[in-house]
Amino acid sequence: MTENKKENGKNDAGKEAVLPLKSDFSEWFNSILDIGQIMDVRYPVKGLYVWHPFGFGIRKRVYGIIRDVMDNSGHEETLFPLLIPETEFMKEADHIKGFEDEVFWVTHGGVTPLDVRLALRPTSETAIYPMYQLWIRSHADLPLKLYQVVNTFRHETKHTRPLIRLREITSFKEAHTVHATWEDAKNQVDEAVGLYADIYRKLSVPVLISKRPDWDKFPGGDYTIALDTIMPDGKTLQIGTVHHLGTNFAKTYGIMYENAAGEQEYANQTCYGISERSIASLISVHGDDKGLVLPPAVAPVQAVVIPVLFKETAESVMTACENVVKTLKKAGIRVEMDAGDMRPGAKYYKWELKGSCLRIEIGPRDLEKKSAVLVRRDKGEKQFVSLDTILETVNAELKQMADDLYAAAEEKMKAMIAPCETAEEVKTQLGKGVAVLSWCGCKECGMKIEEETGGSILGTPDRPAEVKKGQCAGCGNEADQIIRVSKMY
Amino acid sequence: MTENKKENGKNDAGKEAVLPLKSDFSEWFNSILDIGQIMDVRYPVKGLYVWHPFGFGIRKRVYGIIRDVMDNSGHEETLFPLLIPETEFMKEADHIKGFEDEVFWVTHGGVTPLDVRLALRPTSETAIYPMYQLWIRSHADLPLKLYQVVNTFRHETKHTRPLIRLREITSFKEAHTVHATWEDAKNQVDEAVGLYADIYRKLSVPVLISKRPDWDKFPGGDYTIALDTIMPDGKTLQIGTVHHLGTNFAKTYGIMYENAAGEQEYANQTCYGISERSIASLISVHGDDKGLVLPPAVAPVQAVVIPVLFKETAESVMTACENVVKTLKKAGIRVEMDAGDMRPGAKYYKWELKGSCLRIEIGPRDLEKKSAVLVRRDKGEKQFVSLDTILETVNAELKQMADDLYAAAEEKMKAMIAPCETAEEVKTQLGKGVAVLSWCGCKECGMKIEEETGGSILGTPDRPAEVKKGQCAGCGNEADQIIRVSKMY
Repeated sequence: MTENKKENGKNDAGKEAVLPLKSDFSEWFNSILDIGQIMDVRYPVKGLYVWHPFGFGIRKRVYGIIRDVMDNSGHEETLFPLLIPETEFMKEADHIKGFEDEVFWVTHGGVTPLDVRLALRPTSETAIYPMYQLWIRSHADLPLKLYQVVNTFRHETKHTRPLIRLREITSFKEAHTVHATWEDAKNQVDEAVGLYADIYRKLSVPVLISKRPDWDKFPGGDYTIALDTIMPDGKTLQIGTVHHLGTNFAKTYGIMYENAAGEQEYANQTCYGISERSIASLISVHGDDKGLVLPPAVAPVQAVVIPVLFKETAESVMTACENVVKTLKKAGIRVEMDAGDMRPGAKYYKWELKGSCLRIEIGPRDLEKKSAVLVRRDKGEKQFVSLDTILETVNAELKQMADDLYAAAEEKMKAMIAPCETAEEVKTQLGKGVAVLSWCGCKECGMKIEEETGGSILGTPDRPAEVKKGQCAGCGNEADQIIRVSKMY
Repeated sequence: MTENKKENGKNDAGKEAVLPLKSDFSEWFNSILDIGQIMDVRYPVKGLYVWHPFGFGIRKRVYGIIRDVMDNSGHEETLFPLLIPETEFMKEADHIKGFEDEVFWVTHGGVTPLDVRLALRPTSETAIYPMYQLWIRSHADLPLKLYQVVNTFRHETKHTRPLIRLREITSFKEAHTVHATWEDAKNQVDEAVGLYADIYRKLSVPVLISKRPDWDKFPGGDYTIALDTIMPDGKTLQIGTVHHLGTNFAKTYGIMYENAAGEQEYANQTCYGISERSIASLISVHGDDKGLVLPPAVAPVQAVVIPVLFKETAESVMTACENVVKTLKKAGIRVEMDAGDMRPGAKYYKWELKGSCLRIEIGPRDLEKKSAVLVRRDKGEKQFVSLDTILETVNAELKQMADDLYAAAEEKMKAMIAPCETAEEVKTQLGKGVAVLSWCGCKECGMKIEEETGGSILGTPDRPAEVKKGQCAGCGNEADQIIRVSKMY
């Protein structure tokens, strides 16, 4: 079973629900989470949500991909405690400043006040690094590359939103690595950016890779590279960050190693994270007016088989459908049969909403020709395929769909990025996507640009730039770099 | 990689460590978690521990088995929030009484006191059932069978112990089901007990299934069936519980459904859980004086290949070893090559400690005969096997090892259970295992027995009993049932 029993096409309140057009993105997003059975937003605490089994089925597969990418690149999975003693948490000054307003504090066990308050991790540096201090002794212990998938907590005061701005981030994959030199850690940052790009490629989600401006880096780090995607409303969503921590945390927590010459040195560190925003992005980027469009790698249902039944031929059509299901299942395809009583149109509506990648219909006339009708969710066109080679066809279409989804999303994203020169141009562009500007590199100009345009600076492209350099949009002097500006989620 | 880089045979403090004999079980257990690289106990909060990657590798596979058993029996995985508002938590009176001393409370977000305090879930009834109230409308919605794998929290005041008594239970699999009738829920309880026994069979861990006495049931439930195993020191460890909740929680949270006749009825519920005690049990039951003995299904390393190298034949022996590794890996066996510089004896020690199921040695004389030496971790005897059929041999030995581990553990467990009549007999038996007594069934006699013997009543066997009935060990009247008594962890 991949859904709970609530009828599709009804929302959580049990009412008939019609999905708003995707052009009304905010409404569409809230509605698809509900009638698409991703999350229930009615949990009685602000910013906490409940995963429906169908949504969890997507999550499970997305995190399967993330874990595979981590495991196959020499990371090892581990698990550290949720609760961080205030004494450890308060050690790194810049880090605290970045998080102190957002930390949930446990103060009591039963009716007894705790001696030391315990923070719910907003991120785990201060839980992990005291242990790294115990573990790392020598250069032979390096590099150390661990990760965990955990729940983390932030007392968000802004408007919360499922999958995007949460008080409990239920699915935070955070990696923490330790290296001998700053350069080694830099190489790890580059590797991590590549791994994250690879993960998003597997989800068919295109990304912009930007080095965040210095005033927006990770609290306590040296610099931050971020991955953003552009949502259908033109705002960007940060869907991954990679931080070079230098020796800052190593100095705070005493993480030292003996180098080859026998001297003690501070270690260099990195950390990087991906949250369930990964799922928000793939739902938002691919979905359409009919509902979910899910990349085959993560779709709970990759194919649905629908028999077209008439009295006299019902038995042979059912047998043919069952054979198709058996063949596909045996090959590892996630396939469902829908032989229910609903009208065909209602069935199409239901499975389009749920993002089944392929729909396979077989009726008596198809059977005569030993064929079936196959409809791909993203294209919507019927094609007639032979029953003899149905497995090969299904595999090929699923593979092609992943590529096509990526290509379509990338094309759409590129069309949402434009070079701009004046503040007015930027303002107009921010309604549609990302503006690219020339910039002299100083903070003052950065702030001025943000103020004049109402946008946020994503940073400088970490990969080849889209426009040639020109005059800084802030001061008018010659610019030596370009920056991306957007409205950010 | 399946281990971090700390040298084996050294403990977390970096010192050479010798595993105590298993007869000194408490010391052995603490030591094996450390030098076996399962957990680090030095996290600076009482009752919270850190999973090493190697230990996490075991956890991942144990929970893979648990998830498979759940998924294949019509349960769906989901995820509910950690934080429970005090207002919901306080609704079910008996339930609160059972947990109020143990709950961690979040009182502040940043520097702001929260309007409503938030409990860290000690278990999730009070988080989940308000949502069930929203979801369940009709008998067609039933049964509902969901589960989640989450971290839960108990402010334990007793002596804490890794994997066994924790303040953060990192790996709680809890299922929550809803049914129309009390009888349906009872059938679900029986099914769940069977599923849990199946899980433990897959871990080669024998269990005792007992109906807990009424005064030791789940707070707020109708009755509790528990699975216990007997640890090497004779004490029992509760490693799974299944609760019939009747309509108690349904009445508190208003979970009603419309029956076929159109009338509103309260739903009947069950819940059942397994924690990382599952891992404590398999480590404890199977391990020996040399270290970990891991069931093949969950061993991070199922086979290690060790080349016996001499100068002239080194190349051909290495090639043969690499071929074996390639063959086994391709077939999905978790195999490692150990071609390091350590002496053979040191390598044996290392891989025995880590619980590699099989050790395969190939030297020049073996190669001449196209054979290898194979040693099973649990038997320790050498056998010569043909290189031509090594995959078949390895598969057969792994399968046989799982069965043999179970048979050996079951035999050992049975020998630790004895019928007793007097309090003195019980006291003596409690040093060795479980005592079985006749009992009239009344609480007064139960309490008297506990007091006189210093044991705890596990309950009445849920499956066929081991002794015939006799006179109640409490009052001397005719007994209509038997009970198990033990020292409990």
